[in-house]
Amino acid sequence: MSFASDNWAGAAPEILDALARANDGAVPGYGGDALTKAVEEKFSDLFERDCAVFFVATGGAANGLALSVMTPPYGMVLCHEESHVQMDECAGPEFFTGGAKLLPIAGPNGKLTAAAVEKTLAGFPDRPPHGAPIRALSLTQGTECGTLYSVDELSAVCATAHDAGLLVHMDGARFSNAVAAADATPAELSWKAGVDVLCFGGTKNGCIAAEAVVFFDPAMAKDFEFRRKRAGHLWSKMRFIAAQFDAYLDNNLWLGLASHANAMAQRLAEGLKEIEGVEFLYPTDINELFLTFPQGVATKLREGGDVFYPWITPGDRAGGRANRPICSFRTTEEEVDAFVERVAKASA
Amino acid sequence: MSFASDNWAGAAPEILDALARANDGAVPGYGGDALTKAVEEKFSDLFERDCAVFFVATGGAANGLALSVMTPPYGMVLCHEESHVQMDECAGPEFFTGGAKLLPIAGPNGKLTAAAVEKTLAGFPDRPPHGAPIRALSLTQGTECGTLYSVDELSAVCATAHDAGLLVHMDGARFSNAVAAADATPAELSWKAGVDVLCFGGTKNGCIAAEAVVFFDPAMAKDFEFRRKRAGHLWSKMRFIAAQFDAYLDNNLWLGLASHANAMAQRLAEGLKEIEGVEFLYPTDINELFLTFPQGVATKLREGGDVFYPWITPGDRAGGRANRPICSFRTTEEEVDAFVERVAKASA
Amino acid sequence: MSFASDNWAGAAPEILDALARANDGAVPGYGGDALTKAVEEKFSDLFERDCAVFFVATGGAANGLALSVMTPPYGMVLCHEESHVQMDECAGPEFFTGGAKLLPIAGPNGKLTAAAVEKTLAGFPDRPPHGAPIRALSLTQGTECGTLYSVDELSAVCATAHDAGLLVHMDGARFSNAVAAADATPAELSWKAGVDVLCFGGTKNGCIAAEAVVFFDPAMAKDFEFRRKRAGHLWSKMRFIAAQFDAYLDNNLWLGLASHANAMAQRLAEGLKEIEGVEFLYPTDINELFLTFPQGVATKLREGGDVFYPWITPGDRAGGRANRPICSFRTTEEEVDAFVERVAKASA
Amino acid sequence: MSFASDNWAGAAPEILDALARANDGAVPGYGGDALTKAVEEKFSDLFERDCAVFFVATGGAANGLALSVMTPPYGMVLCHEESHVQMDECAGPEFFTGGAKLLPIAGPNGKLTAAAVEKTLAGFPDRPPHGAPIRALSLTQGTECGTLYSVDELSAVCATAHDAGLLVHMDGARFSNAVAAADATPAELSWKAGVDVLCFGGTKNGCIAAEAVVFFDPAMAKDFEFRRKRAGHLWSKMRFIAAQFDAYLDNNLWLGLASHANAMAQRLAEGLKEIEGVEFLYPTDINELFLTFPQGVATKLREGGDVFYPWITPGDRAGGRANRPICSFRTTEEEVDAFVERVAKASA
Repeated sequence: MSFASDNWAGAAPEILDALARANDGAVPGYGGDALTKAVEEKFSDLFERDCAVFFVATGGAANGLALSVMTPPYGMVLCHEESHVQMDECAGPEFFTGGAKLLPIAGPNGKLTAAAVEKTLAGFPDRPPHGAPIRALSLTQGTECGTLYSVDELSAVCATAHDAGLLVHMDGARFSNAVAAADATPAELSWKAGVDVLCFGGTKNGCIAAEAVVFFDPAMAKDFEFRRKRAGHLWSKMRFIAAQFDAYLDNNLWLGLASHANAMAQRLAEGLKEIEGVEFLYPTDINELFLTFPQGVATKLREGGDVFYPWITPGDRAGGRANRPICSFRTTEEEVDAFVERVAKASA
Repeated sequence: MSFASDNWAGAAPEILDALARANDGAVPGYGGDALTKAVEEKFSDLFERDCAVFFVATGGAANGLALSVMTPPYGMVLCHEESHVQMDECAGPEFFTGGAKLLPIAGPNGKLTAAAVEKTLAGFPDRPPHGAPIRALSLTQGTECGTLYSVDELSAVCATAHDAGLLVHMDGARFSNAVAAADATPAELSWKAGVDVLCFGGTKNGCIAAEAVVFFDPAMAKDFEFRRKRAGHLWSKMRFIAAQFDAYLDNNLWLGLASHANAMAQRLAEGLKEIEGVEFLYPTDINELFLTFPQGVATKLREGGDVFYPWITPGDRAGGRANRPICSFRTTEEEVDAFVERVAKASA
Repeated sequence: MSFASDNWAGAAPEILDALARANDGAVPGYGGDALTKAVEEKFSDLFERDCAVFFVATGGAANGLALSVMTPPYGMVLCHEESHVQMDECAGPEFFTGGAKLLPIAGPNGKLTAAAVEKTLAGFPDRPPHGAPIRALSLTQGTECGTLYSVDELSAVCATAHDAGLLVHMDGARFSNAVAAADATPAELSWKAGVDVLCFGGTKNGCIAAEAVVFFDPAMAKDFEFRRKRAGHLWSKMRFIAAQFDAYLDNNLWLGLASHANAMAQRLAEGLKEIEGVEFLYPTDINELFLTFPQGVATKLREGGDVFYPWITPGDRAGGRANRPICSFRTTEEEVDAFVERVAKASA
Repeated sequence: MSFASDNWAGAAPEILDALARANDGAVPGYGGDALTKAVEEKFSDLFERDCAVFFVATGGAANGLALSVMTPPYGMVLCHEESHVQMDECAGPEFFTGGAKLLPIAGPNGKLTAAAVEKTLAGFPDRPPHGAPIRALSLTQGTECGTLYSVDELSAVCATAHDAGLLVHMDGARFSNAVAAADATPAELSWKAGVDVLCFGGTKNGCIAAEAVVFFDPAMAKDFEFRRKRAGHLWSKMRFIAAQFDAYLDNNLWLGLASHANAMAQRLAEGLKEIEGVEFLYPTDINELFLTFPQGVATKLREGGDVFYPWITPGDRAGGRANRPICSFRTTEEEVDAFVERVAKASA
């Protein structure tokens, strides 16, 4: 049974259907087609604000390209020490920005706190041109640790950043899961809380390869199109990313898929919490669980065919014993219940 | 009627079907799945040689990433002055290589000749560390001018390059059209003629977004995987590029689609040649035509709804009057004949 | 006898004396000292305009850093095909700019002409985001071919560039020789003719290592200080570059040294012109000669201990037989006359 | 009285004299001269081993260029969180390496410990191609905190790095002070302890602008010359850096100057320790002191004309009250004693 990653799941049928529908006729390339324009505009509706929106195929591209217009190449970007931009993109942000520095900050449950950001800023007083000037802050919603910033937490971090003159980037690879989990609108979880640029992910939540870089201030995007093209991220047949987002936004498919994944994770968490010896590292706010099994149990489960990744990070205090089961839009109740049962058996 | 670009055409139905088939079940991400492995291996069959193969979504990514392992950041890459890497990728190769220089060379019909390469090399004698050392040569097959290198022409250029210690990159965005047009195998048109790395394109020929970087010496690819990841070009759901290539290579779909596009271009060329005042800039070897219409005709056609791009390049001698109609796998005989008729009428 | 390069000459005694004078006491580092501030201001006097001035140690750094604030990393810079930025900096401008493209243009006597620039621009119509946008033009005064742009020639090229929205960079490694040769002021040969940023060289004309990047619009320099620091070109003991320029500008030392070098080159040219079989490639406007000797003569001279470099470039039509004797501020009449005599003897 | 920085001091007279001596005659540029060759070889004597040596003018250039051949652009470099490469080079290492990541590690007294390095490595298990592979470790001797790694401490860190497959870079901007303070040879404090590449500084210790990048394995330097040139760090009149090092190494000038600076710092530390309320943050191993004065004293001293920098870093726990007086080769006993007296008076 695979709880390896939400990207192990394939695509939602609605997404595949949309590709087929979009395949009709000859239309302009490179995003000049009507569908792309129309879907870009849907984001302004979704976020209740005029946005500049750009589609790419991967989250790494979205994050790196977004940051490349938010910091000069000699600038510095604050981020959580366990964030995807810091840990999982093979120095992608440094590549896209032309050498900007990421400054990793520790924080509980994968979250930056206003206090930690302030303390970090205090250690880097403005010393031009010796110190690389801090120009942006990147945070992740839902976090790499499966948790959720509340609107208040988010607003506090963003306010601290803005007070210091920083722009705020949100890695929203699991923004859908965050919205589904929070009692808040997309706008409230992004620009209303102070986010300047959001990378809104589709890939982990039922798309094939679809990420949207959303600029809440369109003026900030002014040279993004050149940077996307230069990096090989402007699709000639752009309609096929637009079509994914068309279906994704239609009828709140994005929210439904994410809610399901979250619900499966909750069910899994509830089941596993009952088992003696299973310890959780973080709250299960979205669709990821971080936990340690009793000694020997992970090995037994893997030998039996269960798949989930170990989780080792700089902030991890579980001594290399943490695991990260993930639920996706495709995970079923039966799969969850069966897995809980196997864990219980292996732990007995 | 659209003769704007082969990328205005959508996807072949076989490609869409393959996506749906690949969607089954949870499989490892990032190319660790069985399908990706299997399709990578198909390239070794196709090219009659052990290859290291990497999939990406765009031609710009394929070219830039390939060049990034063929030249150091302070190196120089010879290319045709009208090539895609020089003219159409918004300085992408410079970005991916970390600042290598492209050195544009003129040549008839979009082709580099051994003589022109030799002359260029003579003007750049080795002067370390002042002159950026020339480390690679990039050529395009079929060319940006719709022409084809014969095996002999290709071998001569590659030999000149190798004699000077350069590696040879082939931009094969329209390699399928080239193979379809040549009386030669894929191997003969690539490594047997001296090509070290081929970017084998699918997107312009019926795929959605699928390009393969093929290293004929797998050792040369050793850090490619890091570079692809860093640039945001490693898909998490890689099976969906693999599936496209699976269908593309199956039953020689790639060759059939390209042959059709080429045949339509031939038909169009033959029709237009009969019309007085239509002048061709280059031979029509593959699926692109480069020509000037009689004064006023292009405007009339465009007003009537025909779509084709003007073609202005450093090497263009048509005084800004050239146009580039392209045929795709979807172009029909009826469309071709109707367009010829409209041109004839407008030119009368 | 060495006519190898003006950088083979050491430093003028006034420059060394100035270092000793500047050595007194503890003064702020990184350009915060009074001497640096004072010398920076001297440039505003020299150029009859408020300038922002930054000192670095090499011409490659000056050019690369200047260009890095004149073009985005995805931009394109027009330059002469034999220019130093294109031929002799090991892809330095590409490095400093983060991957901008240099587009080399041919032109007689090492000069860009307005016509050639216009023709080049016509071949690169604006096609965002496919074509890298042309954002700057770089020219060299005096040129790499030992020639001089007249004020009219210069103004015409700059006007063409400005009309197309480009900024103009002047590589002035031998700007002193140019001013000494022209009947014009430094202002007339730079901003009054349309130059936006000048790299004013000291190193080739009697300094140890001293180049000034002069922004005629100080606002354009706004992030230069970060870029200079990041690239390791901000000296901690900056007073030692400032001191060189202090002496260099004092009493017009710069002009005197350059006038002498030019005069020696004139004397050498006049002497060599009398010798049958010596052919000049370009006019001798400043302190460099480009010529071919009769067959076998260069070898004989070198065997006899004379030192001068061969000159091979893309634009060179001398079949690899060109040579480039250079005179410096230290060259003497006796050295010139003796060399002419040896050439005459070897050519007899 | 200035205790601001060792780079506020000018140059030692022996260094200026050497420039004058080196100024004789025309010699090859770009390091092709006999003096440069000879001085490069002196380093092999000094370090008791065949070295490849490259001269540049600044420490930032030395560090950045050294690291650029020790890590790929997608690699990661471990360093102390208060190191110069991390804090004071405006993202220079990221620029020179083409985007490699620096990973800052905390540690007492400005030092990396083997244990901290091991713990960091454990948090970054090998996950190609997601995690940027850790390829190098950079440490500073003497440290940014004025402390000294013992041979044993150094060997332990290097061994940990080598066991993990990393190369070791040593920022030796104050290597002279370190050797002067340690009971060890230059070889024992560098390659014998496991250092692969040393940036040996002259500028902070009496040179004008002179830093040597020393590769203990010459093969590792293979493309350094291209990178130095590309970055504008190859001096045309290289003899003027070589001359500085010639005098610096002659008669152990470097050691004498550093010993003096260290002795003055010891004298200053001893004097200040007697004053109630002066608290030291770190041991005073070399020529820098880190301390807090009693409330109000720093202000009084500065108002009286004393100059020293505040010291604020991420690792600093002095609440923004730390100061960093530095002694140089020029500091006198009288200056030290007078300063101690003024501090005593202000603190009374």
